[in-house]
Amino acid sequence: MKNLLRNFEQIFVAKHLLFWTLIAVPVALAAGSAVALFLWLLDLVTVFRWQHEWLLYLLPLAGVGIHFLYKAAGKNAEAGNNLIMDEIHQPGGGVPGRMAPLVLVTTLVTHLFGGSAGREGTAVQMGGSMAQLLGRWFGLKPEDIRIILMMGIAAGFGAVFGTPLAGAVFALEVLAIGRIKYNALLPCLMASLFADIVCSAWGIRHTHYVIQSSAALDYLLLLKVILAGVAFGLAGNLFAAATHQVKKLGNRVFTTHKWLMPVTGGLLVILLTFVAGTQDYLGLGVTSKDPGGISIVNAFHAQGVNDWSWLWKLVFTAVTLGMGFKGGEVTPLFFVGAALGHTIAVYAGAPVDLFAGLGFIAVFAGATNTPLACTLMSVELFGPDHVLYFAVACFTAYYFSGHSGIYAAQRMAVSKRGEERN
Amino acid sequence: MKNLLRNFEQIFVAKHLLFWTLIAVPVALAAGSAVALFLWLLDLVTVFRWQHEWLLYLLPLAGVGIHFLYKAAGKNAEAGNNLIMDEIHQPGGGVPGRMAPLVLVTTLVTHLFGGSAGREGTAVQMGGSMAQLLGRWFGLKPEDIRIILMMGIAAGFGAVFGTPLAGAVFALEVLAIGRIKYNALLPCLMASLFADIVCSAWGIRHTHYVIQSSAALDYLLLLKVILAGVAFGLAGNLFAAATHQVKKLGNRVFTTHKWLMPVTGGLLVILLTFVAGTQDYLGLGVTSKDPGGISIVNAFHAQGVNDWSWLWKLVFTAVTLGMGFKGGEVTPLFFVGAALGHTIAVYAGAPVDLFAGLGFIAVFAGATNTPLACTLMSVELFGPDHVLYFAVACFTAYYFSGHSGIYAAQRMAVSKRGEERN
Repeated sequence: MKNLLRNFEQIFVAKHLLFWTLIAVPVALAAGSAVALFLWLLDLVTVFRWQHEWLLYLLPLAGVGIHFLYKAAGKNAEAGNNLIMDEIHQPGGGVPGRMAPLVLVTTLVTHLFGGSAGREGTAVQMGGSMAQLLGRWFGLKPEDIRIILMMGIAAGFGAVFGTPLAGAVFALEVLAIGRIKYNALLPCLMASLFADIVCSAWGIRHTHYVIQSSAALDYLLLLKVILAGVAFGLAGNLFAAATHQVKKLGNRVFTTHKWLMPVTGGLLVILLTFVAGTQDYLGLGVTSKDPGGISIVNAFHAQGVNDWSWLWKLVFTAVTLGMGFKGGEVTPLFFVGAALGHTIAVYAGAPVDLFAGLGFIAVFAGATNTPLACTLMSVELFGPDHVLYFAVACFTAYYFSGHSGIYAAQRMAVSKRGEERN
Repeated sequence: MKNLLRNFEQIFVAKHLLFWTLIAVPVALAAGSAVALFLWLLDLVTVFRWQHEWLLYLLPLAGVGIHFLYKAAGKNAEAGNNLIMDEIHQPGGGVPGRMAPLVLVTTLVTHLFGGSAGREGTAVQMGGSMAQLLGRWFGLKPEDIRIILMMGIAAGFGAVFGTPLAGAVFALEVLAIGRIKYNALLPCLMASLFADIVCSAWGIRHTHYVIQSSAALDYLLLLKVILAGVAFGLAGNLFAAATHQVKKLGNRVFTTHKWLMPVTGGLLVILLTFVAGTQDYLGLGVTSKDPGGISIVNAFHAQGVNDWSWLWKLVFTAVTLGMGFKGGEVTPLFFVGAALGHTIAVYAGAPVDLFAGLGFIAVFAGATNTPLACTLMSVELFGPDHVLYFAVACFTAYYFSGHSGIYAAQRMAVSKRGEERN
């Protein structure tokens, strides 16, 4: 009898898996296609800005536009990623459908006029809001809406970076610090895998990174990786703190005329561009207008960035996002990390390409408290050869990034000193 | 002020990490050395048994010895792995120090006289009981005793298989189904890494497995891997159920003269050996007396095992362990999995070495509900090339292995249909 029941158990599991696999198809079609459209437009916008450098001077004006667009049509959509995470923790009013077009347009505007921002926020918000719409159409229960929202995050993240495994684990890991639950693992994995396939089918190609340095285990190098991991964690923490502080300060100064906040942000970015003497810290930063400029790709080569590139990008991004422009935090985190890793490698006598890759991944791991997803991402982006170094860097960064990451809605399950919090 | 506190936070984290790194050294020295001694003796014992086949006929007598040894000196040590897990969930009387020598001697006796058993139970129990002793000597708080016990598991597991990453994650993942907490991640990782180094320093070498088949992504092959994953999960479930049932039945039949239980077990193993017509299912099974015999290593080569080898090993082990002999379950699970994978590959037209490797890892993942540790283990044992197939096989097996694994003390956090249970 007990064995009979156990067999039924497996039939229920099989039904559960089949159900979510079927749900994953439309989620992936919607999110994967939206991300493909976004990445295609983002590329056009970036090249257009390179060809018309004066667009930067319109950044303050663009900020006003974004501000009033959200004010007129945004409702609660402005909370972005945090709203989606809150809805997963505790279902409330739902994620509004308008979030997808709003964040798409405003991110493109931010990039067109030279704001320093990323992509994953946009992809995750498009994925989340479309997943919510689909969940409503399918008449899913509140419990299942939570799962489909996680699938939306996974699909958006997996498609935008071409890293489906990392996307799936990110959606589970980002919700709470210090704990991962397997409850939506397979739904998220399916959504993320399918969305990546859909996005690629639209012809999107992701940047290819190569680490040529030896992958052999070397204890001195391992020690350097651990110390660099501490620096990466602190940088991730600084990034999150700077963005929060800019926003807090801005909200304190501009109490009545909120639209002055993005105007000031835009003016500050223009000012910073003059001080830095380059436009390379604007926009996404994966590549640069001048092929030899400062960019993520060039951080993997000797002399590709300078000693303070990481801090410049951090400041540019904190001002852009803190003052109300739109886009993700992750690609700037990649930039900060790759540049910091490059610089550490130069002074520590370590391979530049390996440390650029470690920083790329580990600063992100620290700022979002997702060391496991980031370790998987390292395998998907750089191949499996250096996985041990990546795991060590990600978990060290995680330990040293403090308890407040870039997502305010992230909960605390287990503190980094090992104490359980719920 | 908030920033100042945040900086303090990182100092506390650094102190926490330093403290546990220092604790990890003696735990690793003790567990790593004990495991090295165990593996060295196990090898001697196995070769000795091959040279003296008649030892098998003394297996019933050996069972009586084991029975009375635990009865005389065992106290609660007989609960083995489950006792350690219970003490982590809910600290009680502690893990007795006598567990280490008892399980060492009785496992060697089991192997010397031809019982079919593994090693990880022994390694984990030695690690756990020595960790408890050290924790008491250091005057650790109950909360920290839980962590040092997890370190003992990690150290034992990591050293016995030469897979430190898998050891650390196994210790965290095995405690509850469907959830992993990072609370003791770094302590476990340090203990496991150091223990592996200590064990290697004693001259212990682990079996080397190679998968030569192509690692290229092939959708038809992926589909076969998923279907094989279902079979691996069901096999893991069958293994756990068979061992439990044999024990339950034995305890029901032998109510007064408990010592008759291992006697019967020994006689059954002798009988099974005659029916099977080979001694290859006795002992550890990593290699065989005749280099061309049925063994884990030969499951990776064409014609290395036959169609029912997996079931034979399952039955031999369920009888041996269910009837009261000592040793681990994991190496027999490797055997069952590698042989089943081999057979599936033959009939499905898939590469034998890859599927033997997949079964090796995935049946274990299913029976212990530790898909993440097993995915890491696959990288540590077989290299990173096939990690995607391993991850798919492990998680599929996990979904299809039901909710009762080989460890009765494992708790349920999230069911495999996604429901939260606590």
